[in-house]
Amino acid sequence: MLPIPFLLLLLSSILSPSSAADFCVADLTLPTTPAGFSCKKESTVTVSDFVFSGLGVTGNTNNTLKAAVTPAFSSQCPGLNGLGISAARLDIAIGGVVPLHTHPAASEFLVVTQGAILAGFISSSNSVYYKTLYKGDAMVFPRGLLHFQVQTGRSPAVAFGSFSSPNPGLQIVPFALFANSLPTPLVEKVTFLDDAEVKKLKKVFGGTG
Amino acid sequence: MLPIPFLLLLLSSILSPSSAADFCVADLTLPTTPAGFSCKKESTVTVSDFVFSGLGVTGNTNNTLKAAVTPAFSSQCPGLNGLGISAARLDIAIGGVVPLHTHPAASEFLVVTQGAILAGFISSSNSVYYKTLYKGDAMVFPRGLLHFQVQTGRSPAVAFGSFSSPNPGLQIVPFALFANSLPTPLVEKVTFLDDAEVKKLKKVFGGTG
Amino acid sequence: MLPIPFLLLLLSSILSPSSAADFCVADLTLPTTPAGFSCKKESTVTVSDFVFSGLGVTGNTNNTLKAAVTPAFSSQCPGLNGLGISAARLDIAIGGVVPLHTHPAASEFLVVTQGAILAGFISSSNSVYYKTLYKGDAMVFPRGLLHFQVQTGRSPAVAFGSFSSPNPGLQIVPFALFANSLPTPLVEKVTFLDDAEVKKLKKVFGGTG
Amino acid sequence: MLPIPFLLLLLSSILSPSSAADFCVADLTLPTTPAGFSCKKESTVTVSDFVFSGLGVTGNTNNTLKAAVTPAFSSQCPGLNGLGISAARLDIAIGGVVPLHTHPAASEFLVVTQGAILAGFISSSNSVYYKTLYKGDAMVFPRGLLHFQVQTGRSPAVAFGSFSSPNPGLQIVPFALFANSLPTPLVEKVTFLDDAEVKKLKKVFGGTG
Amino acid sequence: MLPIPFLLLLLSSILSPSSAADFCVADLTLPTTPAGFSCKKESTVTVSDFVFSGLGVTGNTNNTLKAAVTPAFSSQCPGLNGLGISAARLDIAIGGVVPLHTHPAASEFLVVTQGAILAGFISSSNSVYYKTLYKGDAMVFPRGLLHFQVQTGRSPAVAFGSFSSPNPGLQIVPFALFANSLPTPLVEKVTFLDDAEVKKLKKVFGGTG
Amino acid sequence: MLPIPFLLLLLSSILSPSSAADFCVADLTLPTTPAGFSCKKESTVTVSDFVFSGLGVTGNTNNTLKAAVTPAFSSQCPGLNGLGISAARLDIAIGGVVPLHTHPAASEFLVVTQGAILAGFISSSNSVYYKTLYKGDAMVFPRGLLHFQVQTGRSPAVAFGSFSSPNPGLQIVPFALFANSLPTPLVEKVTFLDDAEVKKLKKVFGGTG
Repeated sequence: MLPIPFLLLLLSSILSPSSAADFCVADLTLPTTPAGFSCKKESTVTVSDFVFSGLGVTGNTNNTLKAAVTPAFSSQCPGLNGLGISAARLDIAIGGVVPLHTHPAASEFLVVTQGAILAGFISSSNSVYYKTLYKGDAMVFPRGLLHFQVQTGRSPAVAFGSFSSPNPGLQIVPFALFANSLPTPLVEKVTFLDDAEVKKLKKVFGGTG
Repeated sequence: MLPIPFLLLLLSSILSPSSAADFCVADLTLPTTPAGFSCKKESTVTVSDFVFSGLGVTGNTNNTLKAAVTPAFSSQCPGLNGLGISAARLDIAIGGVVPLHTHPAASEFLVVTQGAILAGFISSSNSVYYKTLYKGDAMVFPRGLLHFQVQTGRSPAVAFGSFSSPNPGLQIVPFALFANSLPTPLVEKVTFLDDAEVKKLKKVFGGTG
Repeated sequence: MLPIPFLLLLLSSILSPSSAADFCVADLTLPTTPAGFSCKKESTVTVSDFVFSGLGVTGNTNNTLKAAVTPAFSSQCPGLNGLGISAARLDIAIGGVVPLHTHPAASEFLVVTQGAILAGFISSSNSVYYKTLYKGDAMVFPRGLLHFQVQTGRSPAVAFGSFSSPNPGLQIVPFALFANSLPTPLVEKVTFLDDAEVKKLKKVFGGTG
Repeated sequence: MLPIPFLLLLLSSILSPSSAADFCVADLTLPTTPAGFSCKKESTVTVSDFVFSGLGVTGNTNNTLKAAVTPAFSSQCPGLNGLGISAARLDIAIGGVVPLHTHPAASEFLVVTQGAILAGFISSSNSVYYKTLYKGDAMVFPRGLLHFQVQTGRSPAVAFGSFSSPNPGLQIVPFALFANSLPTPLVEKVTFLDDAEVKKLKKVFGGTG
Repeated sequence: MLPIPFLLLLLSSILSPSSAADFCVADLTLPTTPAGFSCKKESTVTVSDFVFSGLGVTGNTNNTLKAAVTPAFSSQCPGLNGLGISAARLDIAIGGVVPLHTHPAASEFLVVTQGAILAGFISSSNSVYYKTLYKGDAMVFPRGLLHFQVQTGRSPAVAFGSFSSPNPGLQIVPFALFANSLPTPLVEKVTFLDDAEVKKLKKVFGGTG
Repeated sequence: MLPIPFLLLLLSSILSPSSAADFCVADLTLPTTPAGFSCKKESTVTVSDFVFSGLGVTGNTNNTLKAAVTPAFSSQCPGLNGLGISAARLDIAIGGVVPLHTHPAASEFLVVTQGAILAGFISSSNSVYYKTLYKGDAMVFPRGLLHFQVQTGRSPAVAFGSFSSPNPGLQIVPFALFANSLPTPLVEKVTFLDDAEVKKLKKVFGGTG
């Protein structure tokens, strides 16, 4: 007769034929799918796949926006894949801004941990919802809606955003308009902006066309 | 003994205790929920709840955009509620435009039925995808991404957009920025636009602040 | 020091590490998944992946049904993959019909653009909802329910159906019963149809068994 | 100072401010929603809401089908509401049949516990998959596809079907065609059946028109 | 001119370009995805992929629990993949128990077919819901909540559980705590159990550390 | 003729007939649904509905666990309702612990902002994944799996958890077993714990029975 612990392991393996339902750690080398990355084999998964170390480091805000976003999405932390959650650290220097943007695939919940941020969003019916957030305040930005964060007060601001997707996407309106090759007349036509304005901002954001 | 048809009706009623799974026609007077409108009682539902008559009428393009959108969403066609689909008719006069916009809750598939439309979208990584669509061409705009439609050629254009939600939402960037009370300095800060440009467009689109 | 546009590109690439959340253009050569086709690498995606040209062409109605369906599903338009939407053109000649059918995975919203169509569906509780649709009328057929479209009036009809899935499926009852090898006695048993009727229709629709 | 258990209860109530995420027992008197019935207040929920007693009783097969379905859906067992699961008992007397049908909103997994059943389904591409199931055999019928169950062998059959929805719906093709007021010429047009056949079956199944 | 059946086959193939939406039979050799296993090619699918034969066999209850679970999940029955449903047979000998456990990814609906079972679950607000179930009784265990089944009465019990996922997972609390290498001091810290108790149960369940 | 801004407002209102797709702020007085709380009327929504102020306050750890959880779920921050995201602040004093627990409806992503925490989870196949997290480290706990957090090091720890649901639920194993009226013999049967141990912990956690 088999010893009891061995019987139990057998039983356990029968009861749990696969942990596929538990998690799906991203294998970044395999094809992606509409539901996210393909999964690593469970036998190669370690605790490191579920841990991301980097949200404690101040982002480099030495740029035009005076702001930095440090993502912890499924590309950076493969254990997030398929689990409907991710996060990012936001650093905004004095005078800095995260310009008007959306996350096409996620709602965001932003917690301010240092300084103050004037944050807001705009609804489909063009109503505006904005408020100055202080340390410990949190604000939700519903999925797909245009929103922004502006540093305010006398010290740099730090915040942590969490997202309802492991890969929320980020579409920044000035980048979408002025940092690519979208032809200038087309930009003007779809935004009602002046020719001079568009050309100036194409230069600032590195766009062509 | 009961006659057979009566037995069958009994059976049928046992087999189909409720059609709640079939459809959920919106009762616009009841509270809404995260999944859409509450449902009318099935006994009051008629075929009219599933039919919308209005997509054959040319929209009034006598406005700044020279464009009109005629929606057939769950508010207009309550039978769509909960079913993951809706549509809209798009009329664009010569020189008209549907400016940069998103549907926060839906992907769109646009079929051109008359004239020609230069349509495109921008991805999260700021790549642009655009093309001139002629009669019979269709283009998909992925959920939440900024996109636009511009009439082109010598005749007005007509198209039908379908959406992956009964209530897709519509957020037009120039309206979101210039048609409400979002303070001018804040608009400038989050868009990098000039003060003069913002003030001019606030006037065009009826905004204040 | 790096020039500003270069810094911005860096920033942009940090902010948007992947557009996987934006879209998942089908690679028809890779394995499929429960959520649809696997995705092409984003670097090989072009605007053509999002455009389908073929809904402007009249379908060939020279068949028993006097009807033709021209699909624009994810197999035909790979950019639709994963986005919860697709469409099809429907041509019905005079006297034609799209017989009783379901889309197992989608609701449909049908817009008539030419002629007239008598369309309807049947609910789980065996209620019938049908109406004659004219140009500009639209009707929704809830997911999975039996429905039909019959040309009516003096001219051929054209309509565009949109679906709440990129791959809605189509199961036509007479084809399911009479166009395959399902044994005749089994067809009779599960439909209560006569032997002669089943044999006749097997011949019409090309079935065996 | 408060005694420890009281502190713990406080803590517990802070930690679990609501069990709305746990379950949503149907209140059949409130409006329904696209996601199912509205919920009873948690304070009125008892274990009886989660238990259904009736799957042990043989259904009455004294009808035209010689079959009976005893549902345990959310209407019968309100604790199932919102939980994506339900079940039904199936009794088929000798010679009985559950005719061609679909569940518009659910996949089914059928386990035979007594007798033998010839069961099968038809795919969108009109392929047929059928097999005789004996005691202990189980077969899956994918969501929305036409399928059927026929008693076979020398004894009545019993089976339990489970469904991927608390309210799967049930649309039986002969009932949908012949047990309501759908006009006879329309039935003929959308099925290619003979006039005599349709009229005969309308009589058998209690239809009018 | 082509013969009619051939025309129909053509039509049929145009109408149903792919059955990917119908089902996705698991190919256990391909990578998994967040939505389940990758699919076999449809041309290699047979009815056997949808049938599982094994729920009629009494499980071996000769173990510490005096219980056995025979799963019919997507690993055992590949046709279940992607369809939101699965099942398992539960055998509990006299004195047997399925200890406190959860299914992380599924709700369960349990039907007792032989004997009696004392079954229950605990809610997030620590309320307990339990009852003795007899033959024909069914009870639902909401997704993710701790629950248990205890044989009661004078005969062994048999039940069939169905799950709202093709791969529901199973996490048995005593196994999770005592059948692996989780360090004993850590087990004690997170459970408030005595050192002696933890060490005794580690021995019973085969754990180390 | 109407002035242009007025025309635009008209257009805007036609284009955006309802913002129901944007957000659904919880009305805590209305019935709940399987998808969350019913929505407040949009006209009564203010920015305060989207902001929660309380995550900056240190929780009271003067209890048996030496730990406190401050939730920002949809009950506390009604703007989160329906948006798939929420958060909580976690304070653990020296020697404190958040005992073995699950969130039945959500995955968690925990960011440590002060001190150090030994955190881990156990998979369905009884594998353990644990690690000491320092300031700036983040770890994901997949949905429904048992996990724990233990303060470690010389200072109290603070962390922010975000959840893939606006109402994630929280089921703490020792509370579920020892803080209610679940009969002692039943607890023993389903856990394999000693009678003395169960009675002792019932006393600690305030349970009866």
